[in-house]
Amino acid sequence: MQFTVQQIADALGAECQGDTGLTIVRAAEPGDAGPMDLAMAMAPKYAEALSNGDARVAVLWENADWQALGLRAAIFVPRPRMAMAGITAMLDRGQGIEPGIHPSAVIDPTAEIAPNASVGPLAVVGARVRIGSGAIIGAHCVIGTDAVLGDNAVLREMVSIGARAQIGDRFIAQPGARIGSDGFSFVTPEVSGVENVRKTLGDQGDAKAQNWLRIHSLGAVEIGDDVEVGANCTIDNGTIRNTCIGSGSKVDNLVHVGHNTRVGQDCLLCGQTGVSGSVEIGNNVVLGGQTGVVDNIFIGDGVIAGGGTKILSNVPAGRVIMGYPGIKMETHTDIYKAQRRLPRLTRDVEALKKAVFKQPPSD
Amino acid sequence: MQFTVQQIADALGAECQGDTGLTIVRAAEPGDAGPMDLAMAMAPKYAEALSNGDARVAVLWENADWQALGLRAAIFVPRPRMAMAGITAMLDRGQGIEPGIHPSAVIDPTAEIAPNASVGPLAVVGARVRIGSGAIIGAHCVIGTDAVLGDNAVLREMVSIGARAQIGDRFIAQPGARIGSDGFSFVTPEVSGVENVRKTLGDQGDAKAQNWLRIHSLGAVEIGDDVEVGANCTIDNGTIRNTCIGSGSKVDNLVHVGHNTRVGQDCLLCGQTGVSGSVEIGNNVVLGGQTGVVDNIFIGDGVIAGGGTKILSNVPAGRVIMGYPGIKMETHTDIYKAQRRLPRLTRDVEALKKAVFKQPPSD
Amino acid sequence: MQFTVQQIADALGAECQGDTGLTIVRAAEPGDAGPMDLAMAMAPKYAEALSNGDARVAVLWENADWQALGLRAAIFVPRPRMAMAGITAMLDRGQGIEPGIHPSAVIDPTAEIAPNASVGPLAVVGARVRIGSGAIIGAHCVIGTDAVLGDNAVLREMVSIGARAQIGDRFIAQPGARIGSDGFSFVTPEVSGVENVRKTLGDQGDAKAQNWLRIHSLGAVEIGDDVEVGANCTIDNGTIRNTCIGSGSKVDNLVHVGHNTRVGQDCLLCGQTGVSGSVEIGNNVVLGGQTGVVDNIFIGDGVIAGGGTKILSNVPAGRVIMGYPGIKMETHTDIYKAQRRLPRLTRDVEALKKAVFKQPPSD
Repeated sequence: MQFTVQQIADALGAECQGDTGLTIVRAAEPGDAGPMDLAMAMAPKYAEALSNGDARVAVLWENADWQALGLRAAIFVPRPRMAMAGITAMLDRGQGIEPGIHPSAVIDPTAEIAPNASVGPLAVVGARVRIGSGAIIGAHCVIGTDAVLGDNAVLREMVSIGARAQIGDRFIAQPGARIGSDGFSFVTPEVSGVENVRKTLGDQGDAKAQNWLRIHSLGAVEIGDDVEVGANCTIDNGTIRNTCIGSGSKVDNLVHVGHNTRVGQDCLLCGQTGVSGSVEIGNNVVLGGQTGVVDNIFIGDGVIAGGGTKILSNVPAGRVIMGYPGIKMETHTDIYKAQRRLPRLTRDVEALKKAVFKQPPSD
Repeated sequence: MQFTVQQIADALGAECQGDTGLTIVRAAEPGDAGPMDLAMAMAPKYAEALSNGDARVAVLWENADWQALGLRAAIFVPRPRMAMAGITAMLDRGQGIEPGIHPSAVIDPTAEIAPNASVGPLAVVGARVRIGSGAIIGAHCVIGTDAVLGDNAVLREMVSIGARAQIGDRFIAQPGARIGSDGFSFVTPEVSGVENVRKTLGDQGDAKAQNWLRIHSLGAVEIGDDVEVGANCTIDNGTIRNTCIGSGSKVDNLVHVGHNTRVGQDCLLCGQTGVSGSVEIGNNVVLGGQTGVVDNIFIGDGVIAGGGTKILSNVPAGRVIMGYPGIKMETHTDIYKAQRRLPRLTRDVEALKKAVFKQPPSD
Repeated sequence: MQFTVQQIADALGAECQGDTGLTIVRAAEPGDAGPMDLAMAMAPKYAEALSNGDARVAVLWENADWQALGLRAAIFVPRPRMAMAGITAMLDRGQGIEPGIHPSAVIDPTAEIAPNASVGPLAVVGARVRIGSGAIIGAHCVIGTDAVLGDNAVLREMVSIGARAQIGDRFIAQPGARIGSDGFSFVTPEVSGVENVRKTLGDQGDAKAQNWLRIHSLGAVEIGDDVEVGANCTIDNGTIRNTCIGSGSKVDNLVHVGHNTRVGQDCLLCGQTGVSGSVEIGNNVVLGGQTGVVDNIFIGDGVIAGGGTKILSNVPAGRVIMGYPGIKMETHTDIYKAQRRLPRLTRDVEALKKAVFKQPPSD
């Protein structure tokens, strides 16, 4: 895998200058870059380290003085992270999964695998599964009966796809992702303490100790196009209907999405976020790392939640929230500042009480 | 798999009316239901959608006017979620694991597998393992040496059962569940900063930087009957004794249970909850999603923790708690309401100071 | 596996008394110990239970009166947890992985596996992989192309090692650990609402709904010597450079470490901790369970974070922190105490307002 400077610039739609026929085999940080590397120095603070390496070519900010930096060629990009998307896609060497179907894979004779799809060692493909064109199924993946996987999917190793899952095109799954585990849904014969607490916000009432009966998941998981799911994340089957992840949404490592929940399009669910069952999430929602979402609520389009937010009630579209419980980020900041002053405030009130009521401090 | 309306009603112990010989093959949401489906419309708000579908039969609330809803038959249930348990159990089509032992499974000759148990493709069963009657071991499961698995277990794909685990009857494990990983237990040669902080609640003292030495896990995991564990959850081995999960308890996806911890009977540990080592949890405890529990404490019978609670000290039986740190839910609510008013309270105190002490506001 | 009392004491460098030729086969809790067991009774409160068991030998605190406890021999240890490290290492029976390369493993002919390394059933070892002397690769592990694994590694079952990972000696990985998943890194063509919120701390501005473009991970994961990673944890590849875990650091179950992040030496990252991308963590840092760390910050040497801390900004070396957001533990405690008194403080202010301004309470 190698490209000229000109080829890379053309792919990015970017301007380049200098010896644009120079060959690049790899991207590197400015201080580590060798003569065959493309140094990623999109801001002046990164360019300083170029002198520690041997880069001949770098990606720079617009109008950068590349010759003063001792380079022989440069590519200029107006939005560095966008350029990162293009460059890293070109230079990705992948995981080295061999084309074709590995002889050790266990494939049900009724499965339909597109001729140019690849299936890695020891993968298991169940009855009536359909796998689209160009799909790459990693080692040790298990694809359950009647599941459908679209074109150009890339599954890393040990991904689970449960029975009857329906997944669109260009799906990416990191190692150990679980699509279609059963929902966590139980019921007691009589009203439970939890049901009482939800009504009273704190009182169990006289509910007695009981066993939990299982509600099975008859639904599956339905995933749109261009979705990516992270390592060891878990997306549960729906109870009656399917759990859904909309096209363009990205789910990070160790994220949990509960049964029946519907995530809209182009959402980001960041690391270790947990969404309970029967939640409705709109489009373009971003949930920061370790966000938690209680069951049976809705989150409107374009909501952004800061890391660690615990969302305990409906959130209107466009709101930016934070905290436990999650409230408007600006309100959270005001409360937080006031909390920092709370010990002093307490002292002030004691002084006022003493002055006004002539009484000694109470603590 | 198909049932008449009468068969379903009989299984639920519920009343039915109309053409109770009609055949049902599937459960569906009211708006999606076709003529062979059982529409789940247990409350008037769900029944409204029946007119969008083609259901002939529905599950309704008690005394519902089924004929006015355009149905040909109906089943009436007093507690909808209980009916869900029964109906979904009847109509669950499962994951399609074939009966018998798949020829690709790697089974130690000393393992004892009950004649009517199933073992899926590429599963690994270690030396002296015992697997009970009717058990279904999914593809790619690994069952460690000397482990015992009771009757009628259902393991989805890629479940780990560590060496010497002892598991009761009717165990269910979702994909990627880890039973019997080693505990996270390390010690420094001399007193560490963490040990000092635990005593002083904030001061490391003069502990120096040290290496961590590993305390191995000699214990295993012991699980009662009727336990379910979620996808990618982790239950660590004990150090000397076993880590225990009591009968009837249910553990959700991505939950962590640390070494030596004992979970009682009929508990629910909801998604992404983390329980540290050496915790004693009573019976009928419910920990909401993303609950955290510090090590070496006890949680009494019947405790309920709201989602996101961080439990940092012992909790007496029957208490309902919430917050970080977890306190009585009612107290938490009072504090939270006061926090919301805190910016205004701060302004009030400034006004009082100005009036009483004739001094300008301090900020 | 059996040892005399004398052999165990010698290995620990500890004193022993009595019939030190007695044979031990197992460690046990005092109340459960049989005549061939070593009872772990390192403090008087544990020794009380000795009378419930049949122990002949125990590990006791210094100067304990072993004869009064009815024992025939005893080992005396000044720092009990240190003794636990030594004793449990001696008595660990392991997971029973057979020596040699299992015939069902799928090994690329270009892989170099040291002659005395073991590879378990159905493991997959990719092209040009190098595995060091004495390494034990568990069942169902997948080791990606060009990865390097040092001497004496122990990988439990179903561990993923991504392509090009570089791992030092004595590495331990619990089941389902993921080394080298791709980073979670996406960009929108134009400035996104999230980018605006980060600048304004709460305002999305007029950013429009957009798609997310993927930034691929060209880097890998680099791990020092003596590192342990927990069950189902995830360590992502770097974008350009490698993600790094320093020698001696230990990572617990379900922990997430994001792309580009560098963890120093001898750190502990406890259960379910999540570290975002591009974080610099010093040496000897301890992050308690469920800690969260925002991206692009640094955490100095020797920092200790209490369980549940959400670290949203840089933390200087040596600091002990807690809370959401994480602040000095002592400050957090002061604020927390004041919060508990907040409802009363509110009432006091109302009384003051009434007295000073002659106005009725406002709520």
